[in-house]
Amino acid sequence: MSEFNVGFVVFPGITQLDFTGPFEVLSRLATPPSMSEPSRFANAQTYVAAKTMAPVESDRGLLLMPNCTFEDCPPLDLICVPGGTGIVEALADAETLGFISRQAAGARYVTSVCIGAFLLGAVGLLRGKRATTHWAHTSLLPLVGATYEKARIVRDGNVFTSAGVSAGLDFAFAIIAELAGVDVAKAIQLSIEYDPEPPFDAGHPDKASKAATALMTQRNAAARAGIEQALGGRLASSAN
Amino acid sequence: MSEFNVGFVVFPGITQLDFTGPFEVLSRLATPPSMSEPSRFANAQTYVAAKTMAPVESDRGLLLMPNCTFEDCPPLDLICVPGGTGIVEALADAETLGFISRQAAGARYVTSVCIGAFLLGAVGLLRGKRATTHWAHTSLLPLVGATYEKARIVRDGNVFTSAGVSAGLDFAFAIIAELAGVDVAKAIQLSIEYDPEPPFDAGHPDKASKAATALMTQRNAAARAGIEQALGGRLASSAN
Repeated sequence: MSEFNVGFVVFPGITQLDFTGPFEVLSRLATPPSMSEPSRFANAQTYVAAKTMAPVESDRGLLLMPNCTFEDCPPLDLICVPGGTGIVEALADAETLGFISRQAAGARYVTSVCIGAFLLGAVGLLRGKRATTHWAHTSLLPLVGATYEKARIVRDGNVFTSAGVSAGLDFAFAIIAELAGVDVAKAIQLSIEYDPEPPFDAGHPDKASKAATALMTQRNAAARAGIEQALGGRLASSAN
Repeated sequence: MSEFNVGFVVFPGITQLDFTGPFEVLSRLATPPSMSEPSRFANAQTYVAAKTMAPVESDRGLLLMPNCTFEDCPPLDLICVPGGTGIVEALADAETLGFISRQAAGARYVTSVCIGAFLLGAVGLLRGKRATTHWAHTSLLPLVGATYEKARIVRDGNVFTSAGVSAGLDFAFAIIAELAGVDVAKAIQLSIEYDPEPPFDAGHPDKASKAATALMTQRNAAARAGIEQALGGRLASSAN
Protein backbone atom coordinates (compact mmCIF):
# COMPACT_ATOMS: atom_id res chain seq x y z
CA MET A 1 0.00 0.00 0.00
CA SER A 2 1.19 3.49 -0.76
CA GLU A 3 2.08 5.59 2.26
CA PHE A 4 1.63 8.76 0.25
CA ASN A 5 -0.53 9.42 -2.78
CA VAL A 6 0.44 12.42 -4.92
CA GLY A 7 -2.22 13.38 -7.47
CA PHE A 8 -2.26 15.86 -10.34
CA VAL A 9 -5.47 17.20 -11.84
CA VAL A 10 -5.18 17.31 -15.64
CA PHE A 11 -7.73 19.01 -17.88
CA PRO A 12 -7.79 20.07 -21.55
CA GLY A 13 -5.70 23.19 -22.11
CA ILE A 14 -3.41 22.78 -19.11
CA THR A 15 0.08 24.23 -19.37
CA GLN A 16 2.02 20.99 -19.30
CA LEU A 17 5.09 22.35 -17.48
CA ASP A 18 2.81 23.46 -14.61
CA PHE A 19 2.19 19.73 -14.21
CA THR A 20 5.31 17.98 -15.51
CA GLY A 21 7.74 20.16 -13.51
CA PRO A 22 6.43 19.14 -10.09
CA PHE A 23 5.64 15.64 -11.44
CA GLU A 24 9.33 15.04 -12.19
CA VAL A 25 10.28 16.05 -8.64
CA LEU A 26 7.35 14.66 -6.63
CA SER A 27 7.37 11.31 -8.45
CA ARG A 28 10.85 10.86 -6.95
CA LEU A 29 9.53 11.05 -3.39
CA ALA A 30 10.02 7.31 -3.02
CA THR A 31 13.68 7.59 -4.03
CA PRO A 32 16.25 8.43 -2.99
CA PRO A 33 15.74 7.61 0.66
CA SER A 34 17.21 10.08 3.05
CA MET A 35 20.91 9.53 3.42
CA SER A 36 20.56 9.51 7.17
CA GLU A 37 17.51 7.25 7.61
CA PRO A 38 15.33 4.85 5.59
CA SER A 39 12.68 6.51 3.43
CA ARG A 40 9.23 6.77 4.95
CA PHE A 41 7.81 6.98 1.42
CA ALA A 42 9.36 4.02 -0.38
CA ASN A 43 5.97 3.13 -1.88
CA ALA A 44 4.63 6.61 -2.61
CA GLN A 45 2.43 6.64 -5.72
CA THR A 46 1.78 9.30 -8.33
CA TYR A 47 -1.65 9.74 -9.93
CA VAL A 48 -2.53 11.68 -13.06
CA ALA A 49 -6.28 12.19 -12.77
CA ALA A 50 -8.67 13.37 -15.49
CA LYS A 51 -12.39 13.16 -16.30
CA THR A 52 -11.83 10.17 -18.56
CA MET A 53 -8.91 7.97 -19.58
CA ALA A 54 -8.68 9.67 -22.99
CA PRO A 55 -5.50 11.65 -23.83
CA VAL A 56 -5.61 15.23 -22.55
CA GLU A 57 -4.18 17.94 -24.79
CA SER A 58 -2.10 20.73 -23.28
CA ASP A 59 -2.45 24.33 -24.39
CA ARG A 60 0.59 23.77 -26.64
CA GLY A 61 -0.61 20.51 -28.16
CA LEU A 62 1.19 17.94 -26.00
CA LEU A 63 -0.96 14.84 -25.43
CA LEU A 64 -0.81 13.44 -21.91
CA MET A 65 -2.40 10.20 -20.75
CA PRO A 66 -4.18 10.08 -17.37
CA ASN A 67 -3.58 6.98 -15.24
CA CYS A 68 -6.91 7.28 -13.39
CA THR A 69 -10.22 9.09 -13.63
CA PHE A 70 -11.62 11.54 -11.10
CA GLU A 71 -14.03 8.76 -10.13
CA ASP A 72 -11.52 5.97 -9.48
CA CYS A 73 -8.62 8.05 -8.11
CA PRO A 74 -7.77 6.90 -4.59
CA PRO A 75 -7.73 9.38 -1.70
CA LEU A 76 -4.82 11.76 -2.19
CA ASP A 77 -2.39 12.94 0.43
CA LEU A 78 -1.28 15.76 -1.85
CA ILE A 79 -3.39 17.27 -4.61
CA CYS A 80 -1.71 19.53 -7.16
CA VAL A 81 -3.76 21.67 -9.53
CA PRO A 82 -1.90 23.09 -12.55
CA GLY A 83 -3.03 26.07 -14.62
CA GLY A 84 -3.28 26.79 -18.33
CA THR A 85 -5.60 28.58 -20.72
CA GLY A 86 -8.08 25.69 -20.37
CA ILE A 87 -8.81 26.89 -16.85
CA VAL A 88 -11.81 28.92 -17.99
CA GLU A 89 -13.56 25.75 -19.18
CA ALA A 90 -12.35 23.84 -16.11
CA LEU A 91 -13.84 26.52 -13.83
CA ALA A 92 -17.21 25.79 -15.45
CA ASP A 93 -16.87 22.01 -15.10
CA ALA A 94 -18.69 20.60 -12.09
CA GLU A 95 -16.85 17.25 -12.21
CA THR A 96 -13.42 18.92 -12.11
CA LEU A 97 -14.44 21.27 -9.31
CA GLY A 98 -16.12 18.41 -7.44
CA PHE A 99 -13.00 16.25 -7.62
CA ILE A 100 -10.78 19.05 -6.33
CA SER A 101 -13.16 19.87 -3.51
CA ARG A 102 -13.67 16.24 -2.45
CA GLN A 103 -9.98 15.32 -2.56
CA ALA A 104 -8.79 18.52 -0.92
CA ALA A 105 -11.06 17.85 2.05
CA GLY A 106 -8.99 14.82 3.03
CA ALA A 107 -5.57 15.83 1.72
CA ARG A 108 -2.60 16.71 3.86
CA TYR A 109 -1.42 19.22 1.23
CA VAL A 110 -3.54 21.26 -1.17
CA THR A 111 -1.41 22.86 -3.87
CA SER A 112 -1.53 24.80 -7.12
CA VAL A 113 0.79 26.04 -9.83
CA CYS A 114 0.20 29.20 -11.86
CA ILE A 115 -3.49 30.00 -12.46
CA GLY A 116 -4.46 26.60 -11.06
CA ALA A 117 -4.88 28.72 -7.92
CA PHE A 118 -8.25 29.88 -9.25
CA LEU A 119 -9.54 26.30 -9.37
CA LEU A 120 -8.67 25.99 -5.68
CA GLY A 121 -10.27 29.38 -5.15
CA ALA A 122 -13.45 28.47 -7.03
CA VAL A 123 -14.24 25.79 -4.47
CA GLY A 124 -13.50 28.07 -1.54
CA LEU A 125 -10.06 26.72 -0.64
CA LEU A 126 -8.30 30.10 -0.72
CA ARG A 127 -10.87 32.06 1.29
CA GLY A 128 -9.04 34.11 3.92
CA LYS A 129 -5.68 32.78 2.78
CA ARG A 130 -2.48 34.38 1.52
CA ALA A 131 -1.71 33.09 -1.98
CA THR A 132 0.17 33.62 -5.24
CA THR A 133 -0.39 32.86 -8.93
CA HIS A 134 1.01 33.82 -12.36
CA TRP A 135 2.18 37.47 -12.25
CA ALA A 136 -0.39 38.58 -14.86
CA HIS A 137 -3.30 37.36 -12.73
CA THR A 138 -2.39 38.24 -9.16
CA SER A 139 -4.93 41.06 -8.99
CA LEU A 140 -7.74 38.52 -9.43
CA LEU A 141 -6.93 36.70 -6.18
CA PRO A 142 -9.34 38.81 -4.08
CA LEU A 143 -12.17 37.42 -6.24
CA VAL A 144 -11.69 34.11 -4.40
CA GLY A 145 -11.17 35.76 -1.03
CA ALA A 146 -7.38 35.46 -1.09
CA THR A 147 -4.73 38.08 -0.38
CA TYR A 148 -1.85 38.24 -2.85
CA GLU A 149 1.56 37.73 -1.35
CA LYS A 150 4.50 38.55 -3.59
CA ALA A 151 6.49 35.33 -3.49
CA ARG A 152 7.29 32.44 -5.78
CA ILE A 153 5.76 29.97 -3.31
CA VAL A 154 3.21 30.91 -0.65
CA ARG A 155 2.20 28.60 2.15
CA ASP A 156 -0.82 29.28 4.33
CA GLY A 157 -1.73 26.37 6.53
CA ASN A 158 -1.79 23.25 4.38
CA VAL A 159 -2.29 25.24 1.16
CA PHE A 160 0.72 25.89 -1.09
CA THR A 161 0.22 28.13 -4.11
CA SER A 162 3.01 28.86 -6.56
CA ALA A 163 3.70 31.51 -9.18
CA GLY A 164 3.63 31.01 -12.96
CA VAL A 165 4.42 27.76 -14.79
CA SER A 166 8.07 27.02 -13.95
CA ALA A 167 7.48 27.88 -10.27
CA GLY A 168 6.05 24.37 -9.94
CA LEU A 169 9.60 23.03 -9.89
CA ASP A 170 10.61 25.20 -6.94
CA PHE A 171 7.38 24.43 -5.09
CA ALA A 172 7.93 20.68 -5.46
CA PHE A 173 11.34 20.87 -3.80
CA ALA A 174 9.85 22.81 -0.90
CA ILE A 175 7.28 20.05 -0.41
CA ILE A 176 9.88 17.26 -0.64
CA ALA A 177 12.03 19.02 1.95
CA GLU A 178 9.12 19.28 4.33
CA LEU A 179 7.93 15.71 3.79
CA ALA A 180 11.17 13.78 3.47
CA GLY A 181 13.81 16.19 4.70
CA VAL A 182 16.31 18.59 3.19
CA ASP A 183 18.82 15.84 2.37
CA VAL A 184 16.32 14.05 0.15
CA ALA A 185 15.29 17.28 -1.57
CA LYS A 186 18.93 18.10 -2.27
CA ALA A 187 19.62 14.61 -3.61
CA ILE A 188 16.66 14.86 -6.01
CA GLN A 189 17.87 18.32 -7.06
CA LEU A 190 21.26 16.82 -7.85
CA SER A 191 19.71 13.89 -9.70
CA ILE A 192 17.88 16.19 -12.11
CA GLU A 193 20.81 18.65 -12.19
CA TYR A 194 18.47 21.47 -11.21
CA ASP A 195 21.11 24.14 -11.31
CA PRO A 196 19.22 26.68 -13.42
CA GLU A 197 21.07 29.12 -15.64
CA PRO A 198 18.46 31.08 -17.56
CA PRO A 199 20.32 32.87 -20.36
CA PHE A 200 18.40 36.06 -19.50
CA ASP A 201 17.05 37.59 -16.32
CA ALA A 202 13.58 38.33 -17.60
CA GLY A 203 11.33 35.88 -15.78
CA HIS A 204 9.32 38.38 -13.75
CA PRO A 205 7.94 41.86 -14.53
CA ASP A 206 10.28 43.27 -11.86
CA LYS A 207 13.15 42.35 -14.20
CA ALA A 208 11.62 42.22 -17.68
CA SER A 209 11.35 45.21 -20.00
CA LYS A 210 8.18 47.28 -19.96
CA ALA A 211 7.61 46.34 -23.61
CA ALA A 212 7.78 42.60 -22.89
CA THR A 213 5.54 42.94 -19.84
CA ALA A 214 3.02 44.97 -21.83
CA LEU A 215 2.99 42.42 -24.65
CA MET A 216 2.52 39.50 -22.29
CA THR A 217 -0.15 41.32 -20.28
CA GLN A 218 -2.02 41.94 -23.51
CA ARG A 219 -1.69 38.26 -24.49
CA ASN A 220 -3.04 37.24 -21.08
CA ALA A 221 -6.05 39.56 -21.34
CA ALA A 222 -8.46 36.95 -22.73
CA ALA A 223 -7.57 34.40 -20.04
CA ARG A 224 -7.84 37.09 -17.40
CA ALA A 225 -11.28 38.18 -18.59
CA GLY A 226 -12.42 34.55 -18.77
CA ILE A 227 -11.28 33.79 -15.22
CA GLU A 228 -12.79 37.03 -13.94
CA GLN A 229 -16.12 36.22 -15.53
CA ALA A 230 -16.11 32.62 -14.30
CA LEU A 231 -15.25 33.64 -10.75
CA GLY A 232 -17.36 36.78 -10.75
CA GLY A 233 -20.46 34.78 -11.61
CA ARG A 234 -19.56 32.19 -9.02
CA LEU A 235 -18.95 34.74 -6.29
CA ALA A 236 -22.16 36.61 -7.10
CA SER A 237 -24.23 33.42 -7.00
CA SER A 238 -22.63 32.17 -3.77
CA ALA A 239 -23.52 35.52 -2.19
CA ASN A 240 -27.20 34.97 -2.89
CA MET B 1 3.27 25.19 -44.37
CA SER B 2 5.50 25.27 -41.32
CA GLU B 3 8.60 27.41 -41.65
CA PHE B 4 10.25 25.51 -38.85
CA ASN B 5 9.68 21.96 -37.64
CA VAL B 6 10.81 21.18 -34.10
CA GLY B 7 10.84 17.46 -33.30
CA PHE B 8 11.39 15.50 -30.10
CA VAL B 9 12.41 11.85 -30.07
CA VAL B 10 10.45 9.97 -27.39
CA PHE B 11 11.24 6.42 -26.33
CA PRO B 12 10.20 4.19 -23.42
CA GLY B 13 12.01 5.18 -20.22
CA ILE B 14 12.74 8.79 -21.19
CA THR B 15 13.03 11.32 -18.39
CA GLN B 16 9.98 13.36 -19.21
CA LEU B 17 11.39 16.72 -18.02
CA ASP B 18 14.29 16.30 -20.48
CA PHE B 19 11.57 16.49 -23.11
CA THR B 20 8.77 18.59 -21.60
CA GLY B 21 11.08 21.39 -20.41
CA PRO B 22 12.31 22.34 -23.89
CA PHE B 23 8.90 21.41 -25.35
CA GLU B 24 7.22 24.12 -23.27
CA VAL B 25 9.69 26.73 -24.52
CA LEU B 26 10.24 25.62 -28.12
CA SER B 27 6.53 25.07 -28.78
CA ARG B 28 6.18 28.83 -28.16
CA LEU B 29 8.48 29.69 -31.04
CA ALA B 30 5.48 30.78 -33.09
CA THR B 31 4.40 33.20 -30.39
CA PRO B 32 5.06 35.80 -29.24
CA PRO B 33 6.40 37.50 -32.32
CA SER B 34 9.36 39.71 -31.74
CA MET B 35 8.30 43.04 -30.37
CA SER B 36 10.31 44.83 -33.03
CA GLU B 37 9.36 42.83 -36.14
CA PRO B 38 6.81 40.23 -37.28
CA SER B 39 7.62 36.63 -36.33
CA ARG B 40 9.40 34.60 -38.98
CA PHE B 41 8.03 31.47 -37.31
CA ALA B 42 4.31 32.13 -36.99
CA ASN B 43 3.54 28.63 -38.28
CA ALA B 44 6.32 26.66 -36.59
CA GLN B 45 5.20 23.14 -35.71
CA THR B 46 6.17 20.80 -32.90
CA TYR B 47 6.44 17.04 -33.42
CA VAL B 48 6.60 14.32 -30.77
CA ALA B 49 7.98 11.33 -32.65
CA ALA B 50 8.07 7.70 -31.51
CA LYS B 51 8.28 4.24 -33.05
CA THR B 52 4.52 3.82 -32.94
CA MET B 53 1.52 5.96 -31.97
CA ALA B 54 1.09 4.04 -28.69
CA PRO B 55 1.57 5.92 -25.39
CA VAL B 56 5.21 6.08 -24.30
CA GLU B 57 5.96 5.65 -20.59
CA SER B 58 8.58 7.84 -18.94
CA ASP B 59 11.05 6.45 -16.41
CA ARG B 60 8.72 7.77 -13.68
CA GLY B 61 5.52 6.38 -15.14
CA LEU B 62 4.14 9.40 -16.99
CA LEU B 63 2.36 8.37 -20.20
CA LEU B 64 3.02 10.63 -23.19
CA MET B 65 1.32 10.38 -26.58
CA PRO B 66 3.37 10.80 -29.75
CA ASN B 67 1.83 12.88 -32.53
CA CYS B 68 3.76 11.13 -35.30
CA THR B 69 5.86 8.03 -35.89
CA PHE B 70 9.50 7.94 -36.92
CA GLU B 71 8.25 6.88 -40.33
CA ASP B 72 5.75 9.67 -40.97
CA CYS B 73 7.54 12.54 -39.19
CA PRO B 74 8.25 15.33 -41.68
CA PRO B 75 11.80 16.63 -42.15
CA LEU B 76 12.86 18.44 -38.98
CA ASP B 77 14.68 21.74 -38.75
CA LEU B 78 15.55 21.01 -35.13
CA ILE B 79 15.80 17.55 -33.62
CA CYS B 80 15.96 17.23 -29.83
CA VAL B 81 16.92 13.94 -28.20
CA PRO B 82 16.11 13.62 -24.47
CA GLY B 83 17.71 11.15 -22.07
CA GLY B 84 16.40 8.79 -19.42
CA THR B 85 17.14 5.32 -18.10
CA GLY B 86 15.51 3.86 -21.22
CA ILE B 87 18.48 5.04 -23.23
CA VAL B 88 20.23 1.68 -22.93
CA GLU B 89 17.38 0.00 -24.85
CA ALA B 90 17.16 2.95 -27.25
CA LEU B 91 20.88 2.61 -28.02
CA ALA B 92 20.17 -0.95 -29.15
CA ASP B 93 17.18 0.04 -31.28
CA ALA B 94 17.98 0.38 -34.96
CA GLU B 95 14.77 2.28 -35.77
CA THR B 96 15.44 4.93 -33.12
CA LEU B 97 19.07 5.34 -34.18
CA GLY B 98 18.06 5.37 -37.84
CA PHE B 99 15.49 8.11 -37.26
CA ILE B 100 18.00 10.28 -35.41
CA SER B 101 20.68 9.77 -38.03
CA ARG B 102 18.34 10.41 -40.97
CA GLN B 103 16.73 13.52 -39.48
CA ALA B 104 19.97 14.98 -38.15
CA ALA B 105 21.47 14.85 -41.63
CA GLY B 106 19.04 17.51 -42.86
CA ALA B 107 18.41 19.45 -39.65
CA ARG B 108 19.61 22.97 -38.99
CA TYR B 109 20.04 22.13 -35.29
CA VAL B 110 20.92 18.79 -33.72
CA THR B 111 20.36 18.84 -29.96
CA SER B 112 20.27 16.69 -26.86
CA VAL B 113 19.36 16.94 -23.21
CA CYS B 114 21.04 14.90 -20.44
CA ILE B 115 22.19 11.44 -21.57
CA GLY B 116 20.33 11.88 -24.84
CA ALA B 117 23.82 12.98 -25.93
CA PHE B 118 24.80 9.32 -26.20
CA LEU B 119 22.09 8.67 -28.78
CA LEU B 120 23.58 11.46 -30.88
CA GLY B 121 27.01 9.98 -30.19
CA ALA B 122 25.97 6.45 -31.15
CA VAL B 123 25.26 7.57 -34.70
CA GLY B 124 28.52 9.51 -34.95
CA LEU B 125 27.13 13.01 -34.48
CA LEU B 126 29.48 13.96 -31.62
CA ARG B 127 32.71 12.72 -33.20
CA GLY B 128 35.37 15.39 -32.79
CA LYS B 129 32.94 17.71 -31.01
CA ARG B 130 32.89 19.42 -27.64
CA ALA B 131 29.81 18.29 -25.69
CA THR B 132 28.14 17.96 -22.31
CA THR B 133 25.71 15.56 -20.63
CA HIS B 134 24.39 14.68 -17.13
CA TRP B 135 27.19 15.22 -14.59
CA ALA B 136 27.29 11.52 -13.63
CA HIS B 137 28.05 10.45 -17.21
CA THR B 138 30.46 13.06 -18.55
CA SER B 139 33.43 10.70 -18.45
CA LEU B 140 31.73 8.48 -21.04
CA LEU B 141 31.75 11.19 -23.72
CA PRO B 142 35.12 10.07 -25.18
CA LEU B 143 33.46 6.74 -26.04
CA VAL B 144 31.60 8.61 -28.79
CA GLY B 145 34.61 10.68 -29.80
CA ALA B 146 33.50 13.82 -27.93
CA THR B 147 35.44 16.04 -25.56
CA TYR B 148 33.63 16.99 -22.36
CA GLU B 149 33.26 20.71 -21.83
CA LYS B 150 32.09 21.77 -18.37
CA ALA B 151 29.08 23.90 -19.18
CA ARG B 152 25.32 23.68 -18.87
CA ILE B 153 24.92 24.11 -22.64
CA VAL B 154 27.65 23.37 -25.16
CA ARG B 155 27.44 24.40 -28.79
CA ASP B 156 29.80 23.02 -31.40
CA GLY B 157 28.77 23.88 -34.92
CA ASN B 158 25.09 23.04 -35.27
CA VAL B 159 25.15 20.59 -32.37
CA PHE B 160 23.84 21.73 -28.98
CA THR B 161 24.20 19.35 -26.04
CA SER B 162 22.90 20.20 -22.60
CA ALA B 163 23.57 18.97 -19.07
CA GLY B 164 21.19 16.88 -16.93
CA VAL B 165 17.38 16.95 -17.13
CA SER B 166 16.41 20.52 -16.17
CA ALA B 167 19.18 21.94 -18.39
CA GLY B 168 16.78 21.43 -21.29
CA LEU B 169 14.92 24.55 -20.20
CA ASP B 170 18.03 26.71 -20.38
CA PHE B 171 19.09 25.20 -23.70
CA ALA B 172 15.69 25.94 -25.23
CA PHE B 173 15.96 29.64 -24.43
CA ALA B 174 19.40 29.77 -26.01
CA ILE B 175 17.94 28.29 -29.21
CA ILE B 176 14.95 30.67 -29.24
CA ALA B 177 17.30 33.64 -28.80
CA GLU B 178 19.39 32.52 -31.73
CA LEU B 179 16.43 31.73 -33.99
CA ALA B 180 13.96 34.45 -33.13
CA GLY B 181 16.00 37.00 -31.21
CA VAL B 182 16.66 37.90 -27.61
CA ASP B 183 13.42 39.88 -27.27
CA VAL B 184 11.33 36.84 -28.13
CA ALA B 185 13.31 34.61 -25.78
CA LYS B 186 12.82 37.10 -22.95
CA ALA B 187 9.10 37.40 -23.66
CA ILE B 188 8.69 33.61 -23.52
CA GLN B 189 10.72 33.54 -20.29
CA LEU B 190 8.35 36.09 -18.83
CA SER B 191 5.28 34.21 -20.06
CA ILE B 192 6.31 31.04 -18.18
CA GLU B 193 7.65 33.09 -15.25
CA TYR B 194 11.00 31.34 -15.56
CA ASP B 195 12.57 33.07 -12.62
CA PRO B 196 13.97 30.04 -10.84
CA GLU B 197 14.40 29.99 -7.08
CA PRO B 198 15.60 26.52 -6.12
CA PRO B 199 15.17 26.27 -2.34
CA PHE B 200 18.66 24.73 -2.15
CA ASP B 201 21.89 25.18 -4.07
CA ALA B 202 22.60 21.53 -4.67
CA GLY B 203 22.02 21.01 -8.38
CA HIS B 204 25.59 20.14 -9.36
CA PRO B 205 28.35 18.11 -7.65
CA ASP B 206 30.38 21.34 -7.37
CA LYS B 207 27.78 22.52 -4.87
CA ALA B 208 26.19 19.35 -3.49
CA SER B 209 27.49 17.46 -0.49
CA LYS B 210 29.89 14.58 -1.01
CA ALA B 211 27.33 12.22 0.52
CA ALA B 212 24.60 13.26 -1.92
CA THR B 213 26.97 13.06 -4.88
CA ALA B 214 28.16 9.62 -3.80
CA LEU B 215 24.58 8.37 -3.38
CA MET B 216 23.53 9.67 -6.77
CA THR B 217 26.67 8.35 -8.47
CA GLN B 218 25.90 4.93 -7.02
CA ARG B 219 22.29 5.16 -8.25
CA ASN B 220 23.52 6.07 -11.73
CA ALA B 221 25.96 3.16 -11.87
CA ALA B 222 23.62 0.76 -13.68
CA ALA B 223 22.73 3.30 -16.36
CA ARG B 224 26.38 4.18 -16.72
CA ALA B 225 27.41 0.55 -17.15
CA GLY B 226 24.59 0.01 -19.65
CA ILE B 227 25.58 3.00 -21.75
CA GLU B 228 29.24 2.03 -21.59
CA GLN B 229 28.48 -1.48 -22.76
CA ALA B 230 26.15 -0.30 -25.54
CA LEU B 231 28.67 2.23 -26.82
CA GLY B 232 31.71 0.08 -26.19
CA GLY B 233 30.26 -2.68 -28.35
CA ARG B 234 29.33 -0.18 -30.99
CA LEU B 235 32.75 1.45 -31.00
CA ALA B 236 34.50 -1.91 -31.11
CA SER B 237 32.39 -3.13 -34.02
CA SER B 238 32.75 0.09 -35.96
CA ALA B 239 36.52 -0.22 -35.58
CA ASN B 240 36.44 -3.58 -37.37
